[in-house]
Amino acid sequence: MGDLPGRAFLAELARAAAAETLPRFRTEGAVINKLGEGFDPVTEADRAAEGAIRALIETHYPEHGIIGEEHGSVRADASHVWIIDPIDGTRAFISGLPVWGTLVGLTVDGIARCGFMHQPFTDELFLADGQGAALLQGERTPRALSTRGGVDLAAATLFTTTPALYAGDKRERYDALEARVRLPRYGCDCYAFAMVAAGHADIAVEAGLAPYDICALVPLIEQAGGVVTRWDGGRPEQGGDIIAAGSAELHAAALEILAP
Amino acid sequence: MGDLPGRAFLAELARAAAAETLPRFRTEGAVINKLGEGFDPVTEADRAAEGAIRALIETHYPEHGIIGEEHGSVRADASHVWIIDPIDGTRAFISGLPVWGTLVGLTVDGIARCGFMHQPFTDELFLADGQGAALLQGERTPRALSTRGGVDLAAATLFTTTPALYAGDKRERYDALEARVRLPRYGCDCYAFAMVAAGHADIAVEAGLAPYDICALVPLIEQAGGVVTRWDGGRPEQGGDIIAAGSAELHAAALEILAP
Repeated sequence: MGDLPGRAFLAELARAAAAETLPRFRTEGAVINKLGEGFDPVTEADRAAEGAIRALIETHYPEHGIIGEEHGSVRADASHVWIIDPIDGTRAFISGLPVWGTLVGLTVDGIARCGFMHQPFTDELFLADGQGAALLQGERTPRALSTRGGVDLAAATLFTTTPALYAGDKRERYDALEARVRLPRYGCDCYAFAMVAAGHADIAVEAGLAPYDICALVPLIEQAGGVVTRWDGGRPEQGGDIIAAGSAELHAAALEILAP
Repeated sequence: MGDLPGRAFLAELARAAAAETLPRFRTEGAVINKLGEGFDPVTEADRAAEGAIRALIETHYPEHGIIGEEHGSVRADASHVWIIDPIDGTRAFISGLPVWGTLVGLTVDGIARCGFMHQPFTDELFLADGQGAALLQGERTPRALSTRGGVDLAAATLFTTTPALYAGDKRERYDALEARVRLPRYGCDCYAFAMVAAGHADIAVEAGLAPYDICALVPLIEQAGGVVTRWDGGRPEQGGDIIAAGSAELHAAALEILAP
């Protein structure tokens, strides 16, 4: 893992993206409807931020692959592949809520090894560099992140974007899990995973994620002491139905309910 | 209305409360279970912040009444009554999310005339002083707030804490409204109303609110150009089922679906 980029480069990526996203946050007219129907907002900020991130990677790591939500894939078969979601939580972004984030992860031979979630409005950079997870915020002293342990299901806080994510028996399993926890909360996308990594919440559950939704968050959860897998217990890097928990015990208890 | 306190006093209340809430945000051990069962978190921060607000009001306006979530009522029959929710969104607070707020409103003869919502972590003070609504944030120039007009239901963003708030035919009416809007979002309590006042969102709907949940937000919505009432069209100061919208037209369209 000695070939991982350090915190400085990850932070540089976050700043470059923020320079594109933050000036467009809480402004009008930046929403583009990618599909031309339904509701799949993509903002100019999304596109410009991914462009800025890709340019820095191309300059510093021209042999690395890149997979981005907005601009597609290059060298996706390289050993090192960057996975980018320039704005995770576009619905929060266009509603003015400071719970969206820029996600960048780096996989090595398919395993996510480092990455970050950055919320530019609050300037919170939740980062995992291969050595550990930390919160960097403005001029403050970086703070090591660790999940909270010793929380059982009955005492747990659970995040999900919305129960409407789940259909059929998947919904039944989700509802069974929700009924067991102390506090369910909706609507936070990536920010939920950051709160689990920081020890403020215990479980984050999502369905139908793409790789760019989760790869940045995997090292954050793991290097803070948590566990993140698919609902079937498999590695999470390819996305799908995902559960993150603050401890192995809590993860196992939740998986017992969610597993197909 | 010449007897309303000015922005300076409202901002002083916000700062006094923040001095109690912010140091306790994202720390462990501050949650008290008021009822001893179920889940109704009340933090030390809640109690201390309301105490700080009440002390300032007692000093500057000893003849005014005060109704607070935590410490009860005094002089509730006065012409001027302050209505306080020191932490609206306690579930967000204990989950680490920066979408809770301190709510303070002042009613004059039962009508909410000025008030604020303050989010201390982002230092956003959404304030209505009787002259207009404004966002004050740190050292930045205050920004006048206005709702966005010209948005019909099909283009609207709708906030609610969770559809689980609504039971029976109330749920049917809520679901009918949600089905008509472009983007529903869950989980934001007072922050949703601030986003409507700021023109980032269009509708906020809640059920079973107490007066201290809504009185601070009424002048914010109204003085930013929006409309806020109960679902039956009545004044919102006594709480109950509440809808706020960015324009009179949008409010009327939503009320047509929600009204009992």
